[in-house]
Amino acid sequence: MPDMDIEAFRDAAHRTVDWMAAYLTSLAEYPVLPRVSPGDLRLALPDRPPAVHEEFEAVLADVERLLLPATTHWQAPGFMAYFASTASAPGILGEMLAATFNANAMLWRTSPAATELEQVATDWLRQLLGLPGGLFGIINDTASSNTLCALAAAREAQTDLRIRDAGMTGRELPRLRYYTSSEAHSSVEKAGIVLGFGREGCRRVGVDDAFRMDVAALRASIGEDVAAGHRPVAVVATVGTTSTTSVDPVAAIAAICAEYGLWLHVDAAYAGSAAVAPELRWVLDGAELADSIVVNPHKWLFTPLDCSVLWTRRPDVLRDAFSIVPEYLTSAQDAAPAAPNFMDYGVSLGRRFRALKLWMVMRHFGATGLAAAVREHCTFAATLAARVRESEDFELMAPAPLSVVCLRAHPARRAGEPDLDALNARVLDRVNARGRYFLSHTRLHGRYVIRVAFGNLRTTGAHADGVWDELRGALSAEVG
Amino acid sequence: MPDMDIEAFRDAAHRTVDWMAAYLTSLAEYPVLPRVSPGDLRLALPDRPPAVHEEFEAVLADVERLLLPATTHWQAPGFMAYFASTASAPGILGEMLAATFNANAMLWRTSPAATELEQVATDWLRQLLGLPGGLFGIINDTASSNTLCALAAAREAQTDLRIRDAGMTGRELPRLRYYTSSEAHSSVEKAGIVLGFGREGCRRVGVDDAFRMDVAALRASIGEDVAAGHRPVAVVATVGTTSTTSVDPVAAIAAICAEYGLWLHVDAAYAGSAAVAPELRWVLDGAELADSIVVNPHKWLFTPLDCSVLWTRRPDVLRDAFSIVPEYLTSAQDAAPAAPNFMDYGVSLGRRFRALKLWMVMRHFGATGLAAAVREHCTFAATLAARVRESEDFELMAPAPLSVVCLRAHPARRAGEPDLDALNARVLDRVNARGRYFLSHTRLHGRYVIRVAFGNLRTTGAHADGVWDELRGALSAEVG
Repeated sequence: MPDMDIEAFRDAAHRTVDWMAAYLTSLAEYPVLPRVSPGDLRLALPDRPPAVHEEFEAVLADVERLLLPATTHWQAPGFMAYFASTASAPGILGEMLAATFNANAMLWRTSPAATELEQVATDWLRQLLGLPGGLFGIINDTASSNTLCALAAAREAQTDLRIRDAGMTGRELPRLRYYTSSEAHSSVEKAGIVLGFGREGCRRVGVDDAFRMDVAALRASIGEDVAAGHRPVAVVATVGTTSTTSVDPVAAIAAICAEYGLWLHVDAAYAGSAAVAPELRWVLDGAELADSIVVNPHKWLFTPLDCSVLWTRRPDVLRDAFSIVPEYLTSAQDAAPAAPNFMDYGVSLGRRFRALKLWMVMRHFGATGLAAAVREHCTFAATLAARVRESEDFELMAPAPLSVVCLRAHPARRAGEPDLDALNARVLDRVNARGRYFLSHTRLHGRYVIRVAFGNLRTTGAHADGVWDELRGALSAEVG
Repeated sequence: MPDMDIEAFRDAAHRTVDWMAAYLTSLAEYPVLPRVSPGDLRLALPDRPPAVHEEFEAVLADVERLLLPATTHWQAPGFMAYFASTASAPGILGEMLAATFNANAMLWRTSPAATELEQVATDWLRQLLGLPGGLFGIINDTASSNTLCALAAAREAQTDLRIRDAGMTGRELPRLRYYTSSEAHSSVEKAGIVLGFGREGCRRVGVDDAFRMDVAALRASIGEDVAAGHRPVAVVATVGTTSTTSVDPVAAIAAICAEYGLWLHVDAAYAGSAAVAPELRWVLDGAELADSIVVNPHKWLFTPLDCSVLWTRRPDVLRDAFSIVPEYLTSAQDAAPAAPNFMDYGVSLGRRFRALKLWMVMRHFGATGLAAAVREHCTFAATLAARVRESEDFELMAPAPLSVVCLRAHPARRAGEPDLDALNARVLDRVNARGRYFLSHTRLHGRYVIRVAFGNLRTTGAHADGVWDELRGALSAEVG
């Protein structure tokens, strides 16, 4: 069977659009977490590939009949787990067009449109967030990848060690160290493992009562390592930690980085987006001093997965960390400053046209629309946090500066930490099993904590109110 | 401005589908390489982001008016540069649905459908390629990433070195080495830089007359390194090199790997797909002995970017190289063997629902349809290679075992290598400037060589014939 002809494609695509619209209309009807067990879908599908063509009708019917019941509905209004990732309408439209062009933005000449729109979109976003000019922007898949890129650049910046050429083994090198808080994302540690720092190369610095990096402890750790002959290379500050959305004191950290000559990477994957609202721009205070910053439009800027923006003040170092240009990838524009080859600034040679959806999202919402959405999510969180504070049966477990609330049930008539952990796990399971909401958890000071993460564009005020009723109902059902 | 309501989205999406169909219909009308200079598009776009909502009509009009003229048309029938990446109809439809679900397949529970379809799709593809059972499959963005994953696993397999925990610096470690041919892709070297092997950690082994790894040279290199006290950890064999699509003798390499206890990674990013045609299954001879194999459906299996499959016989080692599970990512199914959390097997936490498009492509084409397409591309190449062989003005510069032909103009009345390099560069530029075709180049034994890479599903027999006329015409114009 050859490919569909264009008319068959057009018909199938129109039917797909109707299916997509119907799905988005009916989102609230499904349990957010599907009621399936591991292996259910796999067993329902043939274990051998088809020998011959199957009709699109049959495939779409299987999407409906088999995939839908096994889907965790990230777009459902009650999805409040982890951090949201909303596929807004302009974002989906952008993906449709990008899939059709299917351009590989590895070199300027393999897609001038994708390359230059990537420059434009990352610069527009920089302005929306109030970041300074002169930053080089690039879009990669995830913050995990971008933090790896940043730490690779930090390593490359130790030019005397010649790591790019000579590697890290078989010769004497000082122990490399970087620093991040105990609340930093797991990807910060993972990047260090990949890059050969090892888990022990990542020093976890303690936090204050509001889960922000303790700057005195940071300074002490660096001092110890320097005294021991180790080589500190970077600090990763977090703007919006995963558990509690705490914001590290970036300006103070930047001062220490300047003093010791360390690369400062700011992981603002979630909370950097908040800066689209002028009154929340404080979250990026100090980020203007960073060597690199990552913000994920696929988290809180309504752009479909995957879309993570990395900015750096030192693109030459980033390029030195990654660039290898074999003959078959040379082109006439390689020396043109206006024609970057983005493959030179990261791991992946193949690069999707991710800028298109981000550009279309910014044009649809405009600065004011994005700010209004982020602001509403913060209001949802503030309202819920106030209710928790006033409640006798729940307690707030961390400040809620942005759109996430950390809470736990702590009914007046019960006490004792082990019981509370188990009780809260049951409350969470009960909420998730009912199907209207999906919440996730974390631990703070060893205690089991329920996270309610607003940030999903499809969550309305009614859904935001409803989660509080749901939590109270679940607690009542548990404690009678 | 809030998001579009569903009816507005439906209307915009139907309009987008019509635009997509019109674009795909008119592909042959555009110059494949756009006639723009660096910065043209950037200057044509506003340098500040919009403050308020813009209508979708205006955005789509800008796509047409500004982006289209700056687009390198990867879908055009005359795109024969690098390796093709075709967005087939079922592939585009799969992307539309994936963007709508917008599921993050980081954990089984965050998308059972995506996780289990990833298991099913990678297993179907394994069967289509004739690979043995018992392989663990995962989809990442690119072969660059997957080769990095494989070499990270190879490094992790050196358990006595404790690299994951203790890192690679500040202590005595043997020099780590891995081996790949001089014709291997640049991403193999890049992965080693990232992982701390350094460029010197990647030993480039020579090739035979047909650009295949010289196994005796491989053995000699390993022996030298062992004698010098270094630690060989892996060999990367290539099935389908970028310049000439040569296929390394994988079985012989596997025997050496077994002897020395080295991880064998097979980079079959391009040519592995050929094995869907039974008569081409030989390309993967020996790959059944590999520890890991990468094949890119986004290259020669008509799946839109990005989609690269990694299989491994040793998933536990791959997981050890990457897995970090913080409390906020734990879930009830973590111990279930049927519920892998794919985040544990690579760099990126966020993971798109890439399996859907691949599954839809396999269902549309079926095994026979995929084989027929690959077979036709090889026939195009064989026909062109025969014409070159018979020509007095062109010469074949490498065997053409698959869908790529390496050639150069060498008119009887001219001689002398420097002239020929310049002449061929001019011939290539002339072909590309005319707009019907886009070809790229490489160097073989120092000589400038034109590559004609079939593999684009939209290339018909007429286009395949036409490129030969185009090359001859360009040479005539150059030499009079």
